[in-house]
Amino acid sequence: MKDLWSIGTAELADGKESIMRRGNVYQIANGYMGYRGTLDEFGPEQLVGITLAGIFDRVGSAWREPVNAPNGGFTSVALGGVALSALGNNVTRHRQTLQFANAMFERETEFASKGTTLTIRSARFLSADTPNLGVIRFSFTCNKAAIVTVHTGIDGNIWDLNGPHLVQLSAERRESVLLMQGLTSEASKRVAVAEATDLGFGEVAHESKGNRNLRVINLRAEAGKTYSFHKYFAVFTDNDAVGKPVGEAAIETVLRARKLGYETWLARHNAEWRKRWERGDVKIEGDDEAQLALRYSILQLLMVAPVKGSANSIPARALSGQVYKGAIFWDTEMFMFPFFIHTHPETAIELMRYRIKTLDGARRKAKTEGRGNRGAFYAWESQETGDDACAYYNIGDPFTGRELRTYFRDKQVHISGDVAIAMWDYFRLTGDDSLLLEGGAEVVLECARFYYSSAYYKRDKRRYEILDVIGPDEYHERVNNNAFTNMVAKETLTIANATVNHFRRKHPKELRALLRKLRIEGELPKFRDAARRLFVPKPDAKTGVIEQFEGYFGLRESTVEALKAQMVHPNEYLGAGQGLAVPTKIIKQADVVMMLNLFRTRFSPEIKKANWEYYEPRTEHGSSLSACAYGMVAAEFGNLDFAYKYFLKTAKIDLEAKYKVYVGSVFMGGSHPAANGGAWMTAVLGFGGVQADENRVAINPRLCSKWKRLLFHLAYKGDDFRVNITKNSVTVASSRANTRVHTVLVAGKPVKCRPGRPVTVEYRRAR
Amino acid sequence: MKDLWSIGTAELADGKESIMRRGNVYQIANGYMGYRGTLDEFGPEQLVGITLAGIFDRVGSAWREPVNAPNGGFTSVALGGVALSALGNNVTRHRQTLQFANAMFERETEFASKGTTLTIRSARFLSADTPNLGVIRFSFTCNKAAIVTVHTGIDGNIWDLNGPHLVQLSAERRESVLLMQGLTSEASKRVAVAEATDLGFGEVAHESKGNRNLRVINLRAEAGKTYSFHKYFAVFTDNDAVGKPVGEAAIETVLRARKLGYETWLARHNAEWRKRWERGDVKIEGDDEAQLALRYSILQLLMVAPVKGSANSIPARALSGQVYKGAIFWDTEMFMFPFFIHTHPETAIELMRYRIKTLDGARRKAKTEGRGNRGAFYAWESQETGDDACAYYNIGDPFTGRELRTYFRDKQVHISGDVAIAMWDYFRLTGDDSLLLEGGAEVVLECARFYYSSAYYKRDKRRYEILDVIGPDEYHERVNNNAFTNMVAKETLTIANATVNHFRRKHPKELRALLRKLRIEGELPKFRDAARRLFVPKPDAKTGVIEQFEGYFGLRESTVEALKAQMVHPNEYLGAGQGLAVPTKIIKQADVVMMLNLFRTRFSPEIKKANWEYYEPRTEHGSSLSACAYGMVAAEFGNLDFAYKYFLKTAKIDLEAKYKVYVGSVFMGGSHPAANGGAWMTAVLGFGGVQADENRVAINPRLCSKWKRLLFHLAYKGDDFRVNITKNSVTVASSRANTRVHTVLVAGKPVKCRPGRPVTVEYRRAR
Repeated sequence: MKDLWSIGTAELADGKESIMRRGNVYQIANGYMGYRGTLDEFGPEQLVGITLAGIFDRVGSAWREPVNAPNGGFTSVALGGVALSALGNNVTRHRQTLQFANAMFERETEFASKGTTLTIRSARFLSADTPNLGVIRFSFTCNKAAIVTVHTGIDGNIWDLNGPHLVQLSAERRESVLLMQGLTSEASKRVAVAEATDLGFGEVAHESKGNRNLRVINLRAEAGKTYSFHKYFAVFTDNDAVGKPVGEAAIETVLRARKLGYETWLARHNAEWRKRWERGDVKIEGDDEAQLALRYSILQLLMVAPVKGSANSIPARALSGQVYKGAIFWDTEMFMFPFFIHTHPETAIELMRYRIKTLDGARRKAKTEGRGNRGAFYAWESQETGDDACAYYNIGDPFTGRELRTYFRDKQVHISGDVAIAMWDYFRLTGDDSLLLEGGAEVVLECARFYYSSAYYKRDKRRYEILDVIGPDEYHERVNNNAFTNMVAKETLTIANATVNHFRRKHPKELRALLRKLRIEGELPKFRDAARRLFVPKPDAKTGVIEQFEGYFGLRESTVEALKAQMVHPNEYLGAGQGLAVPTKIIKQADVVMMLNLFRTRFSPEIKKANWEYYEPRTEHGSSLSACAYGMVAAEFGNLDFAYKYFLKTAKIDLEAKYKVYVGSVFMGGSHPAANGGAWMTAVLGFGGVQADENRVAINPRLCSKWKRLLFHLAYKGDDFRVNITKNSVTVASSRANTRVHTVLVAGKPVKCRPGRPVTVEYRRAR
Repeated sequence: MKDLWSIGTAELADGKESIMRRGNVYQIANGYMGYRGTLDEFGPEQLVGITLAGIFDRVGSAWREPVNAPNGGFTSVALGGVALSALGNNVTRHRQTLQFANAMFERETEFASKGTTLTIRSARFLSADTPNLGVIRFSFTCNKAAIVTVHTGIDGNIWDLNGPHLVQLSAERRESVLLMQGLTSEASKRVAVAEATDLGFGEVAHESKGNRNLRVINLRAEAGKTYSFHKYFAVFTDNDAVGKPVGEAAIETVLRARKLGYETWLARHNAEWRKRWERGDVKIEGDDEAQLALRYSILQLLMVAPVKGSANSIPARALSGQVYKGAIFWDTEMFMFPFFIHTHPETAIELMRYRIKTLDGARRKAKTEGRGNRGAFYAWESQETGDDACAYYNIGDPFTGRELRTYFRDKQVHISGDVAIAMWDYFRLTGDDSLLLEGGAEVVLECARFYYSSAYYKRDKRRYEILDVIGPDEYHERVNNNAFTNMVAKETLTIANATVNHFRRKHPKELRALLRKLRIEGELPKFRDAARRLFVPKPDAKTGVIEQFEGYFGLRESTVEALKAQMVHPNEYLGAGQGLAVPTKIIKQADVVMMLNLFRTRFSPEIKKANWEYYEPRTEHGSSLSACAYGMVAAEFGNLDFAYKYFLKTAKIDLEAKYKVYVGSVFMGGSHPAANGGAWMTAVLGFGGVQADENRVAINPRLCSKWKRLLFHLAYKGDDFRVNITKNSVTVASSRANTRVHTVLVAGKPVKCRPGRPVTVEYRRAR
């Protein structure tokens, strides 16, 4: 039986792309920072990156992006004066492994030089217990006595896409602790990295030059003896608000780390990871390929879950680097949030706190963007302030060399509703209204205000309309009454009313304060009116198909292949007003189907099927968000073969890392946490058939043929459940610690689930 | 003193472009047809064209365009067996002349061959009395006895841009009359050309081959003797509804023509032209250049005025060929209609009848175009049915070789208001409501309905808005609340209400019938509401500048030169969504300034000045409609130097014919009747300072420095006036035949004008 809890490789093909891809695949992270899957001896040319969450910087007019920290994990070994690198030609064996159980990266590399063999072993993790801390165990062994030199410390040569971000980079030594500090160029935020080791061999000197702050250990290594030490590095920034200079905090952290020792930290780390997996893992019996890919996907999500209290969110490329400006997109609410709300609500709430934190940025955007609207228009690409990092000109035109105007930033208005819906989902699926009280209600009301102020009333049709938008399908810009967008806007207005009603009953004082603060009371009747009269395209009476936007059905039929055949340059973009897809029905990614997915409890399987079958052949799947949206909906109406195909494609995206990493000259590599979330959604919500709303959880399994059993955890209204699905039975085990009896609807049948009393229900496989 | 009533040239440079340009400059027309200024012996390679008004055809998927008739004016002469052509190398002298007084084209060409000289003289006119008829006087003389062969008859080899349009082209002879007939390929409409001559010399044979139907006359010409004959050709189409086969009608016409003889037809023709000039001419003393150019411009308009009862209008390239599909644009109402309403109201009403005739097409367009609106959305490029001939993809992209999507057709909604305003102007400036009764009121109500149904109500701002349009400036597509468009829409709604009020008082029965027919009574209160609440951008309180559309002021500053410097291909278009002008304030043509021009009585000179000065440096003048709009407004606020510069540029456009004739591979040559109208407007409304509204005529002259005197005719409320402006006096002569006393406001002073009693008022030159 295969180990389905790790991946490993012996390959170390050189070349920038291979190095880059492995750096993504083998990355580790702990929410505070990500550490790319590079090797101890690598430098910036090998794309070493320790990317920090929630701290951004801009240099000149280049893209604003997250800050990478100096590499406190650096160690290189020289044998007989020759520095060893796994990319060198004296490597006789190499193996690197990523352990899923505790997000630990390990490597073992054997070098041979003039008859002497030296083997390096290292393991590293970013502490899940103490997020500022990274821990490394490093050792080497020679088969013969040999002169060995070890350089270990902090490498301040930082790989940046649009850097350098740290100015006045200084290197210090405080006794045995190394420290590097710098200031971000834009806001002069201090970033400090300290490093300590428990080195117990050799003669130690110090070397500080060329942005490196290192110890140099020379020794005559004995044959067969393993020399090992532990490294602790700590990263602090001014964002951490630790009440003391960040350099001091970093030093204190590594000193304390060294004092407690490796095993202690590993144990704490592992304990934390056990908890994460306990609730996060999904077991698939009968399909090792799916199991491994899904588990890897879940690992990615668990690793990048924001630190509690940070009010950070998860960027579109997570913490794998600086791609996409480290920005948070709708991806988080639409594709990652569902995993967390169903398994780790304490992370889900953190993601939502990020949107509360950035509300003022969204207010600024509403005022300045477009038509002087009010309320909150969330950034399409959001960084720490919520101001939009998205450019108006985004896509290089291969013909003119100029950038094409796209309307992602100013017209993709569904983002505010995506946020509001997730905010409300947190409340309705957990039953916990603390998020609403700590700012969520304000977000919801401001999003509703945004839609009300940007909606138009069509008097002769007696309805509100949302005009001039981009829906999820970015090939058709500036369309009217996009089904997805209108549905999301209507829902936001409805949620605003529900929020006010809830507060009126439960928190009248807080409601009064909020309404006064926002001066919004007079607008509430308008929101109610708009929630009722906002137009949403309905399924066609005959075909069941929902028109993606007004006029879509009148567009020209085509195929992705036909469009590609018409291209006169391989890099021409199919959208942006004049692209080949614009006059056709070819869409970039799920749009109506995304709506069916987001509002999965509101549409019948028949409508899902009709729209899936209509839109799927017209979809390019030019976004990593597309396949899983189609996969989930396919599972829901019973097209399990297709669902499985898209599930696997989605689940393997980061594991296989076969995506394009350069678009033109722009580096686009990195992980795909939205697809990771989409893989989980397809497995649990799709095949598992879980539909939860404010009233109950329903489970309508449609296991694909390979799968014998599907086991997963569900969090709902503060209680925990294990669900065990086979081909013909569903067992729901309500945790012993749960506080009340829940009625779960299994395959349409209401089942009472009492704490500590698993219930099994037989079912007939749906269609 | 120069003859300022003709132009002539001795040049006959070969080359397609020169031939083409001369064909435009020397064209003649009579509203029924245009005959390009080509020579008797020319064929399709020399771009001979007899373009018919109001009959269109489409071949395959090529552009639908007007039909050119077989050339009944063909004559060629051979000397000693060698055919003579003015483009040949045996030409010793050539002169061709266009007489403005009666739109007559004359030529005289001397050929020399082996010591013999032969001189051809011809003159031709298209009868202003009998529009189906063309008349030619042809003669030749040899200095020595010589063998001469004359071919004369009908050349059925037709120059077409997107033809051939006539299928089953037949050639017949009925005694001495030649006949060619064919059917349009799309609708099988018959087009017939008959030709007769009074030839009285030589031996006549007939030759019918290769689409030519000719007489061949061989003779031994005597030395010094002039051989002359007259040719009559008649064109009829199924559009003429003459109650008999069109071939018969054509034959009868030429037989009758021959019977009455050349002098009779010339006298009738001249009498008609005297009437035209009597009311149409503008005399400028002190500036021969301006006089000639303006008179030429007026000639162009008088030649192409539609035939009474035809309900035809004037295409953007008039009858100079098939360019722009022979389509009618807003050019007619905005730039030509003013000339006719002020001088020839009987032509102005005909132009408006065309819009009544095409109302159903406009209704169809409103239904199908865009958002399922109601009412009348007139075609951007209108042919005989009013269905839109404008394509969605219009402009060749030099980079991809594909056509760019432009929104001229579907978003340039101001066209309906342009029509409605002209319709109402006819009534308010003539006092004649017959046009409203015969369908004009229906047009106005349907245009109002269109705007009401396409306007959006912004509830929080309590106003209607017009979204997603193109104003006159075509570089900025899909903008909101374009000042010009909103003003025009608001005016249309106001006019609709005024029309209903007028009918309620004067024609209650007709009103009831109309309201019933349109089922529109319930909508009238809405029109009133929208007329009041439709938003129109106001002049900025500080600067007086009106924002062209919402967001215009936020666009990037640039210059035309800067944009051109950024171009990477000489043919790249500056608009169409991704063009270089789109993100900038650079505009293609007058937009706000066009509004100031159209509503010239509503804005103060200060506002006109402020906007002119703001927008002029930001205008490319990439349309022939732009210079005259700026010229007129400059005259109105007193920038006479600029006004004069733009006036002259506009007035000389067709005379100098220096415009580009090929845009990419597309032939764009032809005349510019809108500029011709613009030249008249700048002279009379601009420098003459004429402002007429429903209450009175006002005259505020601002003669440019060169002009000593400006004389013109004005028609107003059924009466006629001659206006004689000098540097310090204005004389208004109310025609003896006028029926009542008018109060004319001269330089701000009310002056009573009694029939037959000229009044002179001194004035001080405005600023």
